[in-house]
This record gives sequence, structure tokens and C-alpha cells, in this order.
Amino acid sequence: MSIVEQVLSQADQQIEQSLERLFALMRIESISTDPAYKSECSAAADWLVSELQDLGFDASARKTPGHPMVVGHDHGSDNGPHVLFYGHYDVQPVDPIELWDRPPFEPGLIEGSDGRKQITGRGSSDDKGQLLTFVEACRAWKAVTGSLPVKVSILFEGEEESGSPSLDGFMQVNKDELKADIALVCDTTMWNADTPAITASLRGMMKENFTIEAASRDLHSGFYGGLARNPLHLLSRIVADLHDENGRVTIPDFYDGVPELTEAQKAEWQRLGFDQDAFLGDIGLSAPASEPGCSGLETLWARPTCEVNGLWGGYNGEGSKTVIPSRANAKFSFRLVGDQDPVAIRKAFRNFVEERLPDDCTIAYDLDDESDGLPLIVDTDQPLLKKAQEALAEEWNCEAPLIGCGGSIPIATEFKRVLDMDTLLIGFALENDRIHSPNEKYELKSFQKGIRSWVRILANLA
Amino acid sequence: MSIVEQVLSQADQQIEQSLERLFALMRIESISTDPAYKSECSAAADWLVSELQDLGFDASARKTPGHPMVVGHDHGSDNGPHVLFYGHYDVQPVDPIELWDRPPFEPGLIEGSDGRKQITGRGSSDDKGQLLTFVEACRAWKAVTGSLPVKVSILFEGEEESGSPSLDGFMQVNKDELKADIALVCDTTMWNADTPAITASLRGMMKENFTIEAASRDLHSGFYGGLARNPLHLLSRIVADLHDENGRVTIPDFYDGVPELTEAQKAEWQRLGFDQDAFLGDIGLSAPASEPGCSGLETLWARPTCEVNGLWGGYNGEGSKTVIPSRANAKFSFRLVGDQDPVAIRKAFRNFVEERLPDDCTIAYDLDDESDGLPLIVDTDQPLLKKAQEALAEEWNCEAPLIGCGGSIPIATEFKRVLDMDTLLIGFALENDRIHSPNEKYELKSFQKGIRSWVRILANLA
Repeated sequence: MSIVEQVLSQADQQIEQSLERLFALMRIESISTDPAYKSECSAAADWLVSELQDLGFDASARKTPGHPMVVGHDHGSDNGPHVLFYGHYDVQPVDPIELWDRPPFEPGLIEGSDGRKQITGRGSSDDKGQLLTFVEACRAWKAVTGSLPVKVSILFEGEEESGSPSLDGFMQVNKDELKADIALVCDTTMWNADTPAITASLRGMMKENFTIEAASRDLHSGFYGGLARNPLHLLSRIVADLHDENGRVTIPDFYDGVPELTEAQKAEWQRLGFDQDAFLGDIGLSAPASEPGCSGLETLWARPTCEVNGLWGGYNGEGSKTVIPSRANAKFSFRLVGDQDPVAIRKAFRNFVEERLPDDCTIAYDLDDESDGLPLIVDTDQPLLKKAQEALAEEWNCEAPLIGCGGSIPIATEFKRVLDMDTLLIGFALENDRIHSPNEKYELKSFQKGIRSWVRILANLA
Repeated sequence: MSIVEQVLSQADQQIEQSLERLFALMRIESISTDPAYKSECSAAADWLVSELQDLGFDASARKTPGHPMVVGHDHGSDNGPHVLFYGHYDVQPVDPIELWDRPPFEPGLIEGSDGRKQITGRGSSDDKGQLLTFVEACRAWKAVTGSLPVKVSILFEGEEESGSPSLDGFMQVNKDELKADIALVCDTTMWNADTPAITASLRGMMKENFTIEAASRDLHSGFYGGLARNPLHLLSRIVADLHDENGRVTIPDFYDGVPELTEAQKAEWQRLGFDQDAFLGDIGLSAPASEPGCSGLETLWARPTCEVNGLWGGYNGEGSKTVIPSRANAKFSFRLVGDQDPVAIRKAFRNFVEERLPDDCTIAYDLDDESDGLPLIVDTDQPLLKKAQEALAEEWNCEAPLIGCGGSIPIATEFKRVLDMDTLLIGFALENDRIHSPNEKYELKSFQKGIRSWVRILANLA
């Protein structure tokens, strides 16, 4: 039995214990976007530090203006590249809580409707389950050989779901410590449940939250209705105006920097055989909201969006209340591609909104550019990417295609910008993992074969 | 000293005790729109029954499918008409609770910024303070003369803020008991703080609540954004489409039955000297939302509206969440005038909304026509109205003009329809009483001179 086979066997034998460790991490309610969960975020960081130290890493939790960073180093072998593995221990809020089948922070193993075993709970997939695939792969290597086949550093952050406000400053200050030959990130999906993938492009992100205020107090809709401005009408007008009848965003110059797909790229994505009807059918939809002439994958991977993530005002309780509210609130996020500039788009968006407000109404924003993330295009010709692709093919017995991703993982652009380091985005999540939604899950197969995949990738990189 | 003067003097001497009784009623949290307050509504009804019985009324709380009706009778004098006084003991919800300066159900007397004494708390004006002006006037009559100058029946309902769902059935069943020569309603405003008024027209009401569902679950805005329909975008489009750039409602045939004002009516309202700038300035606004060419009073009293009272969906908490929600919710109310037909408008509205939904989205409504109320035009030539006008002029030393009201008091149309009885709408609220809003108040002067006004009106009607 080769060394790699021994390590794989060790990982398989220890899968129950690996799962128990994942459950322990998932029980920590590390919601980074809500200040009420600050101590839970610290607890998750401390838990990870302790695990890494047990594995022999020189690990510690580092203070930031927000939630702590976990940094660890293991000298490993002098052969091969020095890798920096990145993951995040924070999770999304859990509301609407009433739609969860089980409490979100009481993880468990259930059988899905397809008969496959699933790990359920908040963070199972995004990103606690994914980041532990790498940690458990390291554990198996250590158990069998006493060391890692390459030099490994680890960075776990706790603010990924909040737009990583502390990350840039932390990397700037700790450049020398964090710089490696390549970054590995496990926060993306496979192409499908049987086919792993390397993600070669990511959309960027720009967020905006605002409140419009009209009257100085809530008003009776009978005594004021018709004469007093209703800010919910203004907000609806603004949101409606943001898209034309073809689903295109109407903010001036919004599409500046959006590349047209090459015919070669279109053909490559065509070959992946994306089943748009099944994709939409899985979420109860049949009519795509995409621009005319854009394929499903082009829409998800290469077109920008302007999305309302939340909107509220007036009376939202039981029954009815005949009120003209004084305020209307909205939260927006934009997914960006190519060379779109979040700074320019924020400015154009605010102009767009404010042009639609009467003089006697005011607007207040509560976010700034700290949460912006640029789009990413990975260099697909680099040798380390090929080696990882080969390792994935060995484990899964099939090609690992290069895919795009509609999500945003600002870390990859930041690694390039601040540390001049390329990133390999290799994840084992599935698109139906319901991340950010009630009943988030991670396939047991993703977890187990994810660990095995990292065992092989580390071997191949060496 | 005439009898009337003795009764007025008695009312003034007892004002402290009258106020204590009002506070006791206001402490009962009788929010009719929220099922959680059902027992509080019953408690308010029982409190009123007890007060009426103490005054010698044959009074009782009557069960309905919703909250109880309070009915009381006092034979009074055989002279003059038999009057039915109507008021409502239920109140609006109190949110946003954080904007109240004091707890809404802990009433008190404070000094306003203008130096006038104000009764504060939910229901102070709408309608607990107003309805007690009549009860306390009866109390003064009884104390001085041992009887009332006319035959008086009383009807207090507990579902006015919920659209009076039980009222029609109750009146149908109890026609003979409730039928009188004229109805008196104290639920309207004065023209200003020194000028009483009789309200000669009311807008009607039609309400709609709905939920749009797109995807079967909340979605990650990165993995689905662009391809999956966002119901908040759909909802915003629907709301935005409801008005054109002139503020006119665009629902087909919406203006059917809306009368054009006569030149005489326009001139009469012109003479009232409505100060639109001051009216809007008082609520922090300067730009009217009215249709071009419509005066302020015409807009508020004689033009229909389509208003969003509440709207919500997606993530409304702290920070941000990059989600495409599965659902979007909205609550609407329409104020109707003239011969507008709520049934036809509901149908046209639903068509309007559903035409704007893709085939894979669904909509559910949670209200029906039970809350509809027709507009009201009072016969201003009736002799009893003139007598009441004279009584008001005596008390306030000025003319009591005939005004319109933008609010909806379905009871007046119902009295005409079911009991073939005209209604006099005489109230002592002010437009800045913040009814339905935080910090609702009722001027102490409104309460005291309201009681005195009813003392005089009862005398004049006899």
C-alpha cells in the first residue's frame, strides 16, 4: 500500500470522529453579521486554534477590529510549494427560523429524499464542513507519516459573511507571515454530485443599505392620504426602475467593464450540459429572469446583477393598519464581473436613487466600500492547478472541469492584490446545499471524499 | 341659571372625575386587529357596560363572531327624536413602539409645546376620548335633572379598526332595537382647535393584503442571482405601476364613479382657508403628492387613493444577508369617494397585480370584502343637523362649518343602508392628534368642550 493509500485509509477509518468534530464546530453560533453573536465568533476561533495545535500547528487567534483571525503554520516537507489554506468559520444569519426542520445549531446526520446521507445545520456546507475537509486531511497525513507532504499555513477568518472588513488590514500587516506559493480555498461547489471542479471565475460584490424618510412620523392614511408622500411608493419606484423589461440593470454605465463571452468560452460551458429547467425546477421555478440571449451559465457566471435582498416599511404584523409610514428601508447587493468598478457603481447607484427622491425626503446609507469585492479570473495555465486537477480526477474517476461561480469570494482577489499569490478554488459543496437558507446541508459524501481529495492534492503538489 | 347652564356647570365641576374614567378605559389594551388582545377588547366592553349601567342605562355586552358590541338604552324624555349614539372602544396597534415618549397604555395629562394640556396615550382621541364626551354629557344631565332630554340608545363596537366585520350582521339581527330617528357619531375632527365642525362627507375604504411566492425557498444571491426571479423586484414593479407620474392611480376603471367637484363646492372649501404648506410642514414635508390641479382639501376629501400601508420581504435585520427571498408581502388600502365600487376595484386590482406575475409565481390574498366601506355624503338640509350646528355655535362662539373627511367611518353608510337612518358626524379631535401613530393625544379642551357640546346638542334636539 502506497503512503497516499495508507493516508486515505486512515481518513476513512476516522470519518466518525471527523464528523463529531464538525458537529462540535457547527454547534457554535458564529453569525458574524449580527453583533449579538460576537462571543460565539470568538469561541469558534478558539475551537479551531485548539484543533490546529493538537495537530502540531503553531496556531493562534489574532485580534482584529472585528472577529478574530486564526493563523497556523506547519513546516511540513521542504519539497514542493508552500500552501496557504483559507476558510471561514463565520456563518449567515438563520432567519426565517420557522422554516428550519431542525434547530440550525443542532447539527445531525439525516437521510435525504435521494437516499444520500446529509449533514444538516447552519454552516454544514458554508464553510465549516468545507474547511474541515482540509484540516481532517492534514490529520490523516500526520497520523500516518507524522508530518505533512508540503509546508502548510492556515488562515481562517470570521467575517466572510460580513464582507471581510478586517481582512485587508490584517494581510497588509502580516504580509511576510501569510505569503506562500499558492493559496487553497475550499468554499465553492462541485460541478455536480459526482464531478469535482476547480472554480476559475468568481463574481465580485458591492452592497448598499438605505433608509428613505418622508414625513416626520407615521400618518393616518385617511387624514393624509393623497397629499402626503408615501416612502414605500418611492422605494418601489426606485427598485422597479433599476431593471428594464429585459432584466437589464438601468443604472448609467453599470455595464462598463462587463466582458462579452468569447465563442470558445460559450462552447466550453455549453459542453458542460447545464440543465436550466432542472436547475430552476429544483427551486420551484420555470421562467428564467435572465437577459434575452444569455444562457443559464452565462447569466450565473458572467453577467452582473442588482438584487434587493431585503425591503420593509409600514405595518408588517397581523391584520391591517391604515398607515402611511414615515420610512422605507432596503438592502441591495450587486454581483459584479470582469472589470466592473464597485466604487463607480456605488456612486452611480446613489445618484440614480437620489434623482428619484423629492426634495422633502431624505436618505441615509449604512454601508460603505469596506464590503466591496472585485471579480476574479483565475490563471488556468498554472502548473499547480493542473496537479490539483489530476488529484481530483484520481479520487473521483472523472475529469474535474474548470467552472465559473456566481458567488463572491473576495479573498481570492485580495490574495493576488496584497500577497501577489494565485488561488486554487476547490470545494465540495453542491448547488442544492441551501447555503444562506433554512435547512443548509452538506453531503456526507462531500465531506468524506473532500477529505480524501485534499489528501491526494497535498501529495500531488509535493 | 337655566337647566342647560346647570348641566354645563355640573360637567365642568366633574371634569377631574371624567378624566379619571377616560384614563381607566385607556389603560385597557383593546387592540382589535391583533388576536392576542381579544380578552382586552372584552374587558373594555365590560367596563363600558358597567359605566352605562351606573348611569341608569339598560346596558349589556353582546357576543359577536369577533369582539363584543355594547348596547344601552335610556328612555329619556318623550320629547324630541330618539338618538342612537355610536362610538368604538377598540384601538390601533401601537408599533413602532420605540417612537412613543411614554408607554401607549399608560395615559396621562401633559403640556403640549403650545402650552395646551393634552391627554396622551393610545385611544385618547380615537375613539375612547371622543366616545366618553357623550357618556359624560349624559352623566351631567342625569346628575342635574335625573333624566336625559331625549330618548338615547348607545352602540359601542370593538372592531372599527378592523373594518367592522361583525357590524352588518349585528345590525341586521337587531334592527328594531337599534333603529332611531338619527345617529350621532363622535369619531371625526374639528375644523381647527377653536372651530367645531360637522363632517358632511367621508371617504370609503377597500383593503388588500397579499403574499407573492417565487422560488420554493430562500436562495443564495450569488449562486442563483440573475436567473432566479426575485419577488421583491416583482412587488416593487407592481407598486410602482399603480401610480402614473401625476400621482393618478392606473388601475383600469379606478376613477369610475368619482364625481367632479362643483364650482360651488370648490368655492366653499376655498373659503375655509386651508393652509397646505402649514399642514405639510407640520409633518416635515413640503411637496404635495396630489394630482396636478387638485387643491389640498379636494385631494383629502374628494379624491380616491391607493396606498401601501406595509411592505416586506427578505432580510430585514442588522447588517446584510445576500439572499433572494422566496416571498414578498404587501398591505394596501384604498380610500374611495362618490360612487366608486369596492367590489369592482378589488377585482380590477387583482387583475392588475396578476397580469404582472410570471406564470411560475403564485399569489395569496388574506382579506376579503368584509372590511369594505362605502363613501358617505350626508344630507346637509336635514333640520336635526341645523339644530346641532346651532348648539355647536353657542358653545364655541363661532360657525360650525360643514367639512369633508378623508378617513372612513363605514358605520354612517351602514346606518343608512341597514337602518335607513341619517347620521350626524360631530367630533372634537384635531388633525394633529396623531391617531394611528405614536404619541396619540386628545386636547383636554376637546374633551371638556366636547362634553359641553353634547350637553347643548341634546338640549337643542329635544
